[in-house]
Amino acid sequence: MKFCSACGLSVTRSVPPGDNRPRYCCAGCGTIHYQNPKMVVGTIPVWGSKVLLCRRAIEPRYGFWTLPASFMENGETTGEGATRETSEEAGARTELGELYSVIDVPHVEQVHLFFRARLLDTDFDPGPESLEAKLFDEHEIPWDDLAFRTVSQTLRWFFADREQGRFGLHTSAIHYTPKPREAQPPKA
Amino acid sequence: MKFCSACGLSVTRSVPPGDNRPRYCCAGCGTIHYQNPKMVVGTIPVWGSKVLLCRRAIEPRYGFWTLPASFMENGETTGEGATRETSEEAGARTELGELYSVIDVPHVEQVHLFFRARLLDTDFDPGPESLEAKLFDEHEIPWDDLAFRTVSQTLRWFFADREQGRFGLHTSAIHYTPKPREAQPPKA
Repeated sequence: MKFCSACGLSVTRSVPPGDNRPRYCCAGCGTIHYQNPKMVVGTIPVWGSKVLLCRRAIEPRYGFWTLPASFMENGETTGEGATRETSEEAGARTELGELYSVIDVPHVEQVHLFFRARLLDTDFDPGPESLEAKLFDEHEIPWDDLAFRTVSQTLRWFFADREQGRFGLHTSAIHYTPKPREAQPPKA
Repeated sequence: MKFCSACGLSVTRSVPPGDNRPRYCCAGCGTIHYQNPKMVVGTIPVWGSKVLLCRRAIEPRYGFWTLPASFMENGETTGEGATRETSEEAGARTELGELYSVIDVPHVEQVHLFFRARLLDTDFDPGPESLEAKLFDEHEIPWDDLAFRTVSQTLRWFFADREQGRFGLHTSAIHYTPKPREAQPPKA
């Protein structure tokens, strides 16, 4: 942020009076521009024993597999956002279930929320953000080719809970760890 | 938003190519300015049978009582934010418990998350955003003078769960309803 979105003048980064952390402040009109974490909302879409994954057609993580999820939009609920993303990314119709995982990812200023969901049919129609959408049994999950750690963590919880026959809310935080090597997208 | 925060030119509101909803777009540098819901994070601080509430020294809802909570900041987890707000608003030291309620408030583009928390002592020191911080037994809760519906809903769940002897995650959505009359702050 270089310019004030309210008046167009340059902003400076300073701690406003009464605050305790630096913000982008406009000396012209006095606006303080707060920046806050974003929510990524998605589903674990289930059909019988299988889970629906999408292969990403966009960066970051082009070509890797993910649960359908993306940024929550203004004016919707977390559940509505999760259902919308499932429709947009996989072209899948779902009946929303319970909130299942809430994972903090502070180094990218995000919180990821996944809901359980029941697929209403298998007529998928992946949108422009997905190369394909496909159902996987647990033993078929491409663990090494999953796009995000919040997705792999949520799937691990899901299969463990299903084994136990009971599902409950799971929460955790994922912190930055440097990658051992630059990951390559999986072969199609 | 009137001006691009990246280059300072005027923005226009239009649907970007490949998108399906209007965004603030800059024709000068091409930046698309996405706007997303914010998280409000807080705690239900418990001391024996009592719950800690703060009386607000700021708008909105000056003079009304609330659980300590405010906007989550970049770089922290939801739980860290909830603990920080409890410290800033009540001057209270807490041990964080489980995530307890997640309430969508789409008409103000917020999601409120409350964690259970155990007070470590009763040496409160309310910050500049609170007029006072005080412990309440269930029958003392000022139900008519609570600041926000997410707070009253969370407290109702909390006391009902405590009665049952078991606590679980609660989720709901609160939608806009016009107030029957303009509410007045409670007498001190």
